[in-house]
Amino acid sequence: MARIENYPSQVLQDAVEAISSLPGVGSRSALRLALNLLGRPAEEIGQFAGAIGRLATDVHYCRRCMMICDGDLCPICADSRRDQSVVCVVASVRDVLSIEATGQYSGVYHILGGIISPIDGIGPSDLKIAELRDRVSAGGISEVILALSGDVEGETTSFYLYRQLAPLGVKITTLARGLGFGDDLEYADALTLGRSITSRQPFKP
Amino acid sequence: MARIENYPSQVLQDAVEAISSLPGVGSRSALRLALNLLGRPAEEIGQFAGAIGRLATDVHYCRRCMMICDGDLCPICADSRRDQSVVCVVASVRDVLSIEATGQYSGVYHILGGIISPIDGIGPSDLKIAELRDRVSAGGISEVILALSGDVEGETTSFYLYRQLAPLGVKITTLARGLGFGDDLEYADALTLGRSITSRQPFKP
Repeated sequence: MARIENYPSQVLQDAVEAISSLPGVGSRSALRLALNLLGRPAEEIGQFAGAIGRLATDVHYCRRCMMICDGDLCPICADSRRDQSVVCVVASVRDVLSIEATGQYSGVYHILGGIISPIDGIGPSDLKIAELRDRVSAGGISEVILALSGDVEGETTSFYLYRQLAPLGVKITTLARGLGFGDDLEYADALTLGRSITSRQPFKP
Repeated sequence: MARIENYPSQVLQDAVEAISSLPGVGSRSALRLALNLLGRPAEEIGQFAGAIGRLATDVHYCRRCMMICDGDLCPICADSRRDQSVVCVVASVRDVLSIEATGQYSGVYHILGGIISPIDGIGPSDLKIAELRDRVSAGGISEVILALSGDVEGETTSFYLYRQLAPLGVKITTLARGLGFGDDLEYADALTLGRSITSRQPFKP
């Protein structure tokens, strides 16, 4: 006897499979989302698909820092009030948004587009490292902040960048690591707590 | 000083707004999903958008039961081994998938495409009720099961359907309501428990 085992329609199945390729979206959620879309007027579905499709065709990248933007240069690189001599090197667009959200940084950025990861087949030539070196070589940059993740890949990438940039005579710094503000010692992981002790700082009352 | 307050690009913002229109997806999740898509090869983004867009253009509806399918008639309506004389009336495609997942039903379906809801401006003429009446009038149907939600709108729709179909002489049934299997009396809502008592059934040992 015919039963609708999974999907009653190939078109629906394709949409569900596409949606469930997103991180954190399981196949049941994807079905729910696809049926929600299916229940909308055709014009609205087309607009939805168009907004996604334009991510592939209409996004521009800042020619200086590789941030996504609408023009040739992003608003940060184009702003003379931001300190164009301090460059914060990050892995992704999301990292820029996270740092901007703190409101604590007034320099500019350089987006690598990932980090060195031999397991994923990502080497230095896959990242915007040559562009960073060229940018520093061109002069006018006094400090490069390496703001990469604290895992092995991040540390490897930071070390690689250090070796590339140190000969250029630029000051190279990295993010402070330690206990988060408000963190309880009891719940801190041993590595973080250990580094917090060895990297202890003068108490400022 | 220029800060990237929300979105560095209109294209990204459009995508985030589209994605956050999905039920249960907040703007932070939508940004995460949009950045995930943005990080994919252009071809893959295009395929994703295409799979969504085809929901508007390529989905077919079964001419008999309104189920989504790939052809003219859905696999259930096309199957002579399913009891074509018993029609289960549901609100949506999702309800069909839920009932099919039980493996307990061997009849066919009729999808109304919603329920009567004056607040949302949905009246009988917005639903596939005339089609249901025509289907029953055409003969060959012995029973119509009203499988709508137990809320006011669902009850209203069931009552409306009853008045439409009863003159045609067809047997009209509805889903059993009561405590769920394994439910604890202590945690049952008063309405359900009350109806379970008034609609009590013979004990079958």
